[in-house]
Parts: sequence; structure tokens; C-alpha cells
Amino acid sequence: MQKITILIHCKDQKAIIATVTTFIAKVEGNITYIDQHVDVEQNVFFMRLECEFTNPDTTLEGFKADFEQNIASTFDMSWDLYNQEQKPKMALFVSKYDHCLFDILGRYSAGELNVEIPVIISNHNDLRSIAERFDIPFHCVPFTKDIKEEGEARQIELLEKYQINFIVLARYMQIITPNLISLYKNRIINIHHSFLPAFPGAKPYHSAFKRGVKIIGATSHYVTAELDEGPIIEQDIARVSHIHSVDDFIMKGRDLERIVLARAIKLHAERKTMVYSNKTVVFS
Amino acid sequence: MQKITILIHCKDQKAIIATVTTFIAKVEGNITYIDQHVDVEQNVFFMRLECEFTNPDTTLEGFKADFEQNIASTFDMSWDLYNQEQKPKMALFVSKYDHCLFDILGRYSAGELNVEIPVIISNHNDLRSIAERFDIPFHCVPFTKDIKEEGEARQIELLEKYQINFIVLARYMQIITPNLISLYKNRIINIHHSFLPAFPGAKPYHSAFKRGVKIIGATSHYVTAELDEGPIIEQDIARVSHIHSVDDFIMKGRDLERIVLARAIKLHAERKTMVYSNKTVVFS
Amino acid sequence: MQKITILIHCKDQKAIIATVTTFIAKVEGNITYIDQHVDVEQNVFFMRLECEFTNPDTTLEGFKADFEQNIASTFDMSWDLYNQEQKPKMALFVSKYDHCLFDILGRYSAGELNVEIPVIISNHNDLRSIAERFDIPFHCVPFTKDIKEEGEARQIELLEKYQINFIVLARYMQIITPNLISLYKNRIINIHHSFLPAFPGAKPYHSAFKRGVKIIGATSHYVTAELDEGPIIEQDIARVSHIHSVDDFIMKGRDLERIVLARAIKLHAERKTMVYSNKTVVFS
Amino acid sequence: MQKITILIHCKDQKAIIATVTTFIAKVEGNITYIDQHVDVEQNVFFMRLECEFTNPDTTLEGFKADFEQNIASTFDMSWDLYNQEQKPKMALFVSKYDHCLFDILGRYSAGELNVEIPVIISNHNDLRSIAERFDIPFHCVPFTKDIKEEGEARQIELLEKYQINFIVLARYMQIITPNLISLYKNRIINIHHSFLPAFPGAKPYHSAFKRGVKIIGATSHYVTAELDEGPIIEQDIARVSHIHSVDDFIMKGRDLERIVLARAIKLHAERKTMVYSNKTVVFS
Repeated sequence: MQKITILIHCKDQKAIIATVTTFIAKVEGNITYIDQHVDVEQNVFFMRLECEFTNPDTTLEGFKADFEQNIASTFDMSWDLYNQEQKPKMALFVSKYDHCLFDILGRYSAGELNVEIPVIISNHNDLRSIAERFDIPFHCVPFTKDIKEEGEARQIELLEKYQINFIVLARYMQIITPNLISLYKNRIINIHHSFLPAFPGAKPYHSAFKRGVKIIGATSHYVTAELDEGPIIEQDIARVSHIHSVDDFIMKGRDLERIVLARAIKLHAERKTMVYSNKTVVFS
Repeated sequence: MQKITILIHCKDQKAIIATVTTFIAKVEGNITYIDQHVDVEQNVFFMRLECEFTNPDTTLEGFKADFEQNIASTFDMSWDLYNQEQKPKMALFVSKYDHCLFDILGRYSAGELNVEIPVIISNHNDLRSIAERFDIPFHCVPFTKDIKEEGEARQIELLEKYQINFIVLARYMQIITPNLISLYKNRIINIHHSFLPAFPGAKPYHSAFKRGVKIIGATSHYVTAELDEGPIIEQDIARVSHIHSVDDFIMKGRDLERIVLARAIKLHAERKTMVYSNKTVVFS
Repeated sequence: MQKITILIHCKDQKAIIATVTTFIAKVEGNITYIDQHVDVEQNVFFMRLECEFTNPDTTLEGFKADFEQNIASTFDMSWDLYNQEQKPKMALFVSKYDHCLFDILGRYSAGELNVEIPVIISNHNDLRSIAERFDIPFHCVPFTKDIKEEGEARQIELLEKYQINFIVLARYMQIITPNLISLYKNRIINIHHSFLPAFPGAKPYHSAFKRGVKIIGATSHYVTAELDEGPIIEQDIARVSHIHSVDDFIMKGRDLERIVLARAIKLHAERKTMVYSNKTVVFS
Repeated sequence: MQKITILIHCKDQKAIIATVTTFIAKVEGNITYIDQHVDVEQNVFFMRLECEFTNPDTTLEGFKADFEQNIASTFDMSWDLYNQEQKPKMALFVSKYDHCLFDILGRYSAGELNVEIPVIISNHNDLRSIAERFDIPFHCVPFTKDIKEEGEARQIELLEKYQINFIVLARYMQIITPNLISLYKNRIINIHHSFLPAFPGAKPYHSAFKRGVKIIGATSHYVTAELDEGPIIEQDIARVSHIHSVDDFIMKGRDLERIVLARAIKLHAERKTMVYSNKTVVFS
């Protein structure tokens, strides 16, 4: 039995839900999940739908063509169809911080993440032994301002070789090139260690300490050309007080970074996020 | 333009969404909100739908009859239709604690609650002056074990007189009679000062203190014949530590009680809750 | 039996705690609360202490003089002593938003706030009836850019007349003049409707909505000459998602504003806050 | 420079703080942290103190003897002194669930936990490969009702061999024997997957689902003879709703279990917890 996930967005129009659900019923699809959202301000309709086909003669290719011709073209939809059996392939980019890497690999090994991780790419060799401990290929790709082009070329080469669907920056401390960002549009997830838009850029815990905030946070977002300005996927916070030093902020923040990044990976891997106007729709 | 809210539940079946949304489209209803839930375990389908009728000839009565005949009876639905213009009438039951009463009346006066409050009923006279300050009729209905029947009779008389749709127990310290509960099934909201099912019954803050918990809570729920066992609508918590006394628990708990009760009132007033199997579906 | 609260700060030095506690013991003071904090970075020592004098001959004046001479001058302390029987007098500044006003007056009436509220000052007349409902004198003091001087003069006149100790801006929508700020240094509390430093200035909920954050917040802080830059007393947050409109943000935010402002008022009224380097020490 | 942590409790009496801090000053100890708590109800005084000795002639043994003779015996104190350089040795007990194990070992490898983990003990062999991946000795000690005595004997033998100071049950699914509990009194930490006292015993997520709660939780506590009744160290919660299945509860709960157990381990390892009356004092 084929199980698929469909993501749709288009201009809001009458009878979209009725038309889509009627079509699915007609081709013997059994809807197991449906959710929709209308952005009233911008008049955009979003839908996420899971269904299974009980008729063994239904092929994904056939369904795709039919849906495109009968439904998607009529409503001028942008849409994607995912086979639930195919796990997305995720590349991890890391530098020297190991806490998010340990957390992700622990979850991966424990079977919590519905992804494959065929490769870890780093601009340093420090974390190689962790990758080896979890039996995941590790490639060191040096990257500095001076060797940006070579670095980017090597990154892209590896991403192609491993057929990577999306990238997770697990405290990767280098800029991602505009070229790579456009190749993986809305498919590069970063974790920033503040509740954005507060404290973008470097050393947010130090800035938070200096400002005397009573709450610190972490934010996972899709990477865009503007640093720390991309669509936010998930945020969380922890309380702090005058008794906490910058080091305490950093230590508490590690838990936030782990959790908020792991949630974003899950949401993306399960195709629960859609991006528009530099924001996300995150289906539950 | 008529605006309505529809709540539906029935056995899960094929094509419910398609059929309902197609029907609404046919009668020129514009769906402005739709959400659904399937309880997979029990095979029950739930739907909440808001729509506006652009055709001035559409009457609520006509629509109701058509929907019942064409849709509801086909799928064997239990369903309710609410005219969004009609605010539900809510009775407040109080005793001597005033913090929830102040909070609800403050919100009511500030226009936050989409209800009418035609009457406050209490088994004591202590809070009469607050009711007067907000110009709401206040009736003292004594209630003890010995005069249960008279008390209940007088309560029901008042509820009928003021055409009450639902009741909120804002720290009302008496038992509600089984008869009144069945008259207002799933329409009596209580606030209990613990995160149920922990610490049911009397003096939950004292029990929480004795047990040395690090978190206290409050729970709003529909009242059933079993004390503190009804369907939970909303819960929230606050952190405590060894430095807090029972009095600190009580003081922190007041904020929880206020917030958790206010949220439950809003959800119920906006017809966002449905009850089944002693649980709630709470639409967003 | 006299009960007092002492707040101390000074350069961190050896044996401060030993010296202070030994002194208190010598004058037959029974310490019922003591907490201290050292800002290691800036080498500053902070202490909060509550004690009661069991000897009826001890006078506050006598104790004050002795402590100043024997302890405070030795360690070059800045310190304050408060008689716990004297409730601080708090002025409320409001404009047109009524939710924080209702909340504060409800808590005040319910006996939750250890303050007196002798006066409410507003630049509009809209909320006069609420003040009257709670029997609190209400003065309309018009205030615009053009009549700043008159406005400020009238405000100060009222603050003096009512012997006000500290001011709470309960969504007061005008600038406080530098002169008034310096008269009430670290004694004017504002509530800002964002988790500062994100979204300072006007319309933070609109900015938060536009940025697509998943968390909104509120911040209470002491007012300084720099708008929304003062020492933060308390912050809290609520989760939001793509389904929430700006109006939903505003509605959810009202609860945050209420709670976060109420907590700040309590902390200040109970002399649990100290300010330094544009930050607060908040004792528990 | 010697750095130590002292934990004290005794009947509340006058001048304890003054006497202790004066004594420390006299022996050239520099207090870097001090916190105290009085349980007013039970009249018990608790203190946690960190200090460093600047005089190289000060020995721990000498200090201990002096403190015992001059201070502790006077106030009839129970007290402990820890050398901050000596990391406590922690044994991990596991069964088949791997998520807490991965989390703890990831944190351990990342240098977050101030402990040594010389051994992992399990009643199954399933998780052996994880232990090997992190180069930690793994011993399978079968344990069932029928072989309790042998199991316990082997556990104690291993704990002695590895000189274990405290035990962490990372979702260990067997009963700990009363004998082992009394050997490690207040030194065995368990993680229970509910916000106790709600849902003690087996399958708490299933019970929570059945009850229709809107909040799930996890609780770390010291193990006592009464199942899930020991002193609570830390708790945390996550929101759930009608859309979540039991499996969703379990998945969300894994994050709670990880975090709440890790926090308890840190608190215990840094000697921030004290137990009395089946409750904990948790210093910050």
C-alpha cells in the first residue's frame, strides 16, 4: 500500500478542499491526515495531506500526472508529493562544537529521526572521531574567506555524491555561500543560539548576559542570504537570573540548541514545514 | 452576512470532508475555518467549521434543515450549529475566593470574553460588593448538605430565569448536584488547583507541598458526577522549589487558576471544545 | 516586634557576611531571610536581609545609626532599610488600554499586592470610570509633545501630593520626561509588549508577526532615558504559530503583559530588586 | 589552591551563619558561594558553601577536624565536605531503552557532566554495543524475581569494584532491592516518565492518554523503598493535545526524560541537593 504526503500552496480560492478531497476519494485514496491554513492577509492557501492508496494498481506516477492535470493546473498550485517510504538524506555540517552532533547522532541511532545521514562535513578535523564512533563518513572541507570557491566546490561535490536532500548546520561556524543557499533553497537548517530577532550574529549569549535578560533562547531557521534572517522553524527558551554567568548561559543554551534543532530536523524530515514570505507554516 | 460555527462528530467514514465541503460550496457558504480530527483508536471523526453565507436568501433554518437531511443523516452525525452573533450566556458560581472573579470580570469589562454574564450565584454574601461594582446581578443561594434540594431548586430557577447556556465555577466551594450536572452536561466548567490527576479533592497545594513537587498546576475541566474526574479542557503549571512555603504555592497558584480558567471560558464560548470518552477535542 | 528589610551593595570584600550577621546577632536581631550575590565580573557584593528585633528597646533610628557607623561605613556600603509595616505608595499611569489596569486593581482589591495605590494618572479620560469603580482618585493630565512642560509639572505635583514612592506605567502611551525619570530613578516600572531586546519601540506584535517568530513575549523593566533599554525585571513568553493573526498575538500578549507587570510590581514592592550596570539582581 | 564544597544541616539556631562564615574567614578560606535555607515548619537549617583556601598549609584533614570540633559539634550539625577536584563515580543501570543512555554518554563525552562513568550495568545485552562505542565497561547482570539475590550480589560486587558513589537508573526496568537502596541511600537517581505523583507505576503515558491530560511530564527522584515515592529532584513538562497519540506522548516524553534526568545528574554531581522529610533542597 502506497503512502504519500502532499504539500500544496496556491492563491486562496473557493472549493479547493472540496475539490482535492473529492479527487482523492475518487482514486481510492484514504486520507489519514489533512490540515490546511489560509493566510488571510496575503490570500494564500496551504494544505498538507497524507493518504494511502488501497488499490494496488495506483502508481505514484499515474497519480501525479492525474493530479497535476485535473487539480493542480486548475487552481494554479505549487505542490510536492513525497513517498513516505523514502527517507530524506541529510548532510550534517559541523565545526568544533560537539553537543548538537552527539545529540543528533544519538537520536539517529535510537531511531528517532526519519532520515538517512550519509555524510558529515566539517571545516575542521576535531569531530572526526565522533563520526567514526557512529560509522558515518566524515569529510574535512577546509573553508575560509580565502578559499571560499574551492570549499564550496568541494561541498557541492560531496552533496551530489551522497545525493543529499537537505543540510543541517549543527553549530557550523562558517558562512554558507549564496550559491549553495540557492541550490538548497529552504533546505538548509541552522540553529542560532538566541531567540531571534534578538541577538543575531556572533556571541549572542555574551550579548544576552550584558543586556541582563531574564530569558535566553535558541532558534532554528532556514538559511537565507541574510545572516540569521531566514524563516523561523522553531524556538524555545529557558529562564536565567542574575546568579547565572555567561558560562551558565552557554551551558543552559546547549540544551536549548539541541532540542530546538532536533525538533526542526524532525519537522522538515516529516515534510511538515512550508515556507512563504520569509515565514514558515508548520503543520502539526 | 450570516456567520456560523458548526461542530460535528460521527463514526469515521470515507469522504466526509469532501461531502461536507462540497455541500457548503453549493449553498454559497464561504468556509473561513475548517479543522478536523480523527480518533484512530475509537474510529470517531470530529470537525469544526466556520462559514459565512454570501447569499442573503440563505436562512439558518433553511440551511439547518438541508444539512440535516442531506448530510448529517447520511453520515449519522451528531452536530450543532451556532450563530456567531449570539453570545452564550454564562453564569458565575462563586464562594469566598475573589481572585478568579476579579479576573473574569476584568476581562469581561475589557471586552475579552465573547459572552454575556447575566448573573452571579454564590453560597455566601462575601463577594456581593464586587458583583455590584461591575453591575452584575448577584444572588446568594445558601447551600449545605442539609438544604441541598432547596439550594439546587433555587439555582435551577435562576439559571432558567437568566436563560443560562453554561456555568463557570470560579472557585465555588460546594458540590454541584447530579441533577444540575445532567441538566448542563459538558456545560459546567470548574477550575481545580492542581495538575490533575495529581492531587484531586481538597487542599491540593498542601498535598503538593508535602510531596515536595517541583511543579504545581491548575486544571480546568467539565464537571461530571465523579469529583475532579471530568474531561480536561486546559492545564498549566508553574515551577516551585524548596524555598516556597504553602502560602507561596497558593499565591503562585492564583495566577495559574486565573489563566487556566480564563482560557477554558474562551475556548468554550467560542465553541472550540468537543467532549467524548471523558476527554476533550480542543480546536485551535 | 519590628520587622525590617535591608538591601546592601558594595565592593566585594572579605568577611562581609560574617561581619553583618554577627552585628545583627549582637543587637538581638533574628534573621528570617538572607540572600547574597557576588557579581564576579564587576566585583560587586549584593545582600538582602530580613530580620525582626525581639528587644522592644531597639528603635529603627538607633539601629540605622549603629549599622551605618559600625558596618556600612567600614565596607563603604550603599544600603537601604525598609520598615516592613510601611507599604510603598504606587501611582498608576495609564492611557486607553484597560487590561493591565483591571488586572492590577483586581489584585489590589484581592489583597495580593503589598502596596497602596493612592492615585491613577492618565493622559486621557477613557479609564476614569474604572478608577471610580475601585474608588481610587483619578487625574487626567494631558500630555503631548507641545505641552510636555505643563504635563510634567502637573505629574510631579500629583506625585508629591500623594507622596508616591514608585510609578507603574500600565500601558501608558506617552514618553516619561528625563526630569521625572531622574526624580524616580529605578522607581518607574514599564511593561513592554515584546521579549526585549527584540522589537523595541512601537507595534512590537506587528513586527513579531511580520518576522514570523514562534514565540512572543513581554518585558517589565525600570524606565531609563533610553527607550526600552532599562534594566529588565521580569520577562515571560507564549508560543504562537502560523495560525495566529496579529490580533491573536495581541490577545495572547495581554495575558503576558498582565502577568509580567504584576510580578514586577510585587518584586519591587517587596524590595526584592536591586539595580546595577543597567541590570537587576532579583532576590527570591 | 584547595577548593571544597560543604553541605550542612541542623536544627535552626541563632547565629549559625555568623559563626560559620567567621570561622571560614579565620582559617583563610575565601567563600565563593554560600546559600542557606530554613524550613520554618520543621525548624531545620540547611547550608551549602563553596570556598577556596589561599593558605597552602591548610589541609583538608586539618580543616575537617577543626570544623567538626569548633563548629559542627557545637550546633549538632550533620555535614559533608567534598573536594571539588574529585569527580564522583557514577554507575549507569539500563535495560533496553537507549535514548537516555545515548543522551548521558553524549553529554559525558562532550564534557558536560562533572562525573566519571566507570561502568554500565544492564539486565540485558541489547545496549552493549553503545557502551562499547563510548569505551565504557558493560556488564550484563540478569535480574528477575527468581534470581534477585544473585542479581543483587553481583550488582553490589560491581559497584564496589568500580568504587561507585552514586547510581543512575536510565530507564532501568527492574526493581532495586531494599538492601541496595539502603547501601546507596539518597544516591540512586531514577527517571519516571510522568509528573509525579500523577501516574506512578507502569505505563504512565498510556494512563495519561486515557485520562486526556493536556500536559505530560517527567520526574527525577531519589529511589526509596516505596516505588516512585522518593524525594523529587527535578520535573519538567510538555504540552499535548487531542491530536497526539500514545506514541506521540512517548516520543515527546523521551525529550523530557533526557533533560530531566540530565539535570538531576548534574545537580547531584555538583552536590547541590540535600534530602530531608522525603523532599529535596536543591541549591542553585
